[in-house]
Amino acid sequence: MIALGIDIGGTKIAAGLVRSDGRILDRTTVPTPAREGSSAILDVACTTAESLLDRSPDRVVGCGIGSAGVIDPDSGTVSSATSSLADWVGTDLRGGVRRRLGLPVRVLNDVHAHAVAEARLGAGAGANRMLLLALGTGIGGALVDAGRVDRGRHGAAGHFGHLPVAEAAGLPCPCGRSGHLEAVASGPAILARCRDRLGDGPELTDTRDVFAAAAAGDIAARTVLDEAATAIGAATAGLINALDPDLVVLAGGLAFADRSWTDRIVDQARSGMIPVVEQCPIVPSQLDVGSAMVGAALWCLSGEEVQ
Amino acid sequence: MIALGIDIGGTKIAAGLVRSDGRILDRTTVPTPAREGSSAILDVACTTAESLLDRSPDRVVGCGIGSAGVIDPDSGTVSSATSSLADWVGTDLRGGVRRRLGLPVRVLNDVHAHAVAEARLGAGAGANRMLLLALGTGIGGALVDAGRVDRGRHGAAGHFGHLPVAEAAGLPCPCGRSGHLEAVASGPAILARCRDRLGDGPELTDTRDVFAAAAAGDIAARTVLDEAATAIGAATAGLINALDPDLVVLAGGLAFADRSWTDRIVDQARSGMIPVVEQCPIVPSQLDVGSAMVGAALWCLSGEEVQ
Repeated sequence: MIALGIDIGGTKIAAGLVRSDGRILDRTTVPTPAREGSSAILDVACTTAESLLDRSPDRVVGCGIGSAGVIDPDSGTVSSATSSLADWVGTDLRGGVRRRLGLPVRVLNDVHAHAVAEARLGAGAGANRMLLLALGTGIGGALVDAGRVDRGRHGAAGHFGHLPVAEAAGLPCPCGRSGHLEAVASGPAILARCRDRLGDGPELTDTRDVFAAAAAGDIAARTVLDEAATAIGAATAGLINALDPDLVVLAGGLAFADRSWTDRIVDQARSGMIPVVEQCPIVPSQLDVGSAMVGAALWCLSGEEVQ
Repeated sequence: MIALGIDIGGTKIAAGLVRSDGRILDRTTVPTPAREGSSAILDVACTTAESLLDRSPDRVVGCGIGSAGVIDPDSGTVSSATSSLADWVGTDLRGGVRRRLGLPVRVLNDVHAHAVAEARLGAGAGANRMLLLALGTGIGGALVDAGRVDRGRHGAAGHFGHLPVAEAAGLPCPCGRSGHLEAVASGPAILARCRDRLGDGPELTDTRDVFAAAAAGDIAARTVLDEAATAIGAATAGLINALDPDLVVLAGGLAFADRSWTDRIVDQARSGMIPVVEQCPIVPSQLDVGSAMVGAALWCLSGEEVQ
């Protein structure tokens, strides 16, 4: 069986034809018209997808969409999102794509979709219960148990960046609350905190600059990164203690920014894990970010009814 | 269908015959010979259970056991436990009870068993995805989703007392790690922290004395209880953000110790919940602690295979 997978992100839209064993038969990527509103985004996504459908020799049974934002499991609409896509909240993804393509459509969050792929084809292959932690512009993740991604009541499960950590006490979080992991350990938080400490120091334009400054011996950069790693490690340990997975997969750009920094996260996590779960492996993801497209297609093919 | 339920706790063993609708047809309770070792405990539990089986006019199809300690899902043995039951770690509960009673036996942790009952018959009835938080000598809980209690790889899921919280930063936890919720918010932690602050003040022998001292205006008691409520609230919010349940049920003795204190926990939780899940109800449990016996029996009848 073959499904169409579409991954709608803030900068690009990836579409592909995916076989039930995970093999990608055809794929293409286009820039997201992020500022043009949801209708334009769906038009571009579906035009791109149609080019794949038109040239496919095989029947495509359905379409799985992995999208930025919180996807309501009942309606397949976007119920919450950052401003990276204009006008995205309220978008009827399921209905909008179904109308345009004439295929059955299933929609889930892009991190959830990545987790489905990682569990089937990546670091989680062979494990029954995989916890994925995605570290990047935001911090999120997913639990995949027996092939089923745990979406929660509103499709919001996996907001692991909004766990409390000591390092973030009193600090404002992008969600509007305070004290959450994301306030100290997302890419933008690390960059902003390092800038604050440096004052008139070297110009930093990207989180990568913070890692570079730390590698060059800058104390402010090292302190900020140490606090972030400690916080991520503590939260990871808390999740392992609370959820008892077979393994934890660290994904997202930050997980691959600096090997010794990621090692520090793992060490910190180990120092917080209770004895009964202390053997839980913590490993890097094996699939790249494009895997959300594959995960969405596989999830569509799985036919899992979550509603 | 009728199953035997057995709840093995540190002070008493409850046994009962439970119908699949949750009705208790017969029940009895005996003291746990906690210091005499696992064989003596199983003997007492099974002798008690046999008295129920002997006088039952109906066929009993199996036995569900809810037990203190972490129960390995594969083997039905106790893989980890506090010292409240002598010699409990390593006990083959499934095999030991099956041999004595000649019935099919299924075993799970007592908090997980309580959660099964609460989800079916208590505050979670009608909800699809219930998160239970049990506040007492320890802090634990369970997620029950679509009738299935989430036990985790080692049966250790629900160790919510071992989430990081700012209020516990640097404080030793009974698990051997530090910085965990249980270090500031379990009953014994509240009592010990209040004693530490009071020095030569009034004699405190029980966590209830701390609540009484706070009600009488004692500043040390109020401070310790405030920190505990803040920590529990923050962890509860983190769990709601991470797991997106339909509702949260607060159970255990501490949840009923003082109404205004529990209200404070709920207020603190609400201040940490992200917008997409902020409507999640947080309610008191409806079933008493004896419900672990009922939950174990219902779980046995559900025939759910978790291995």
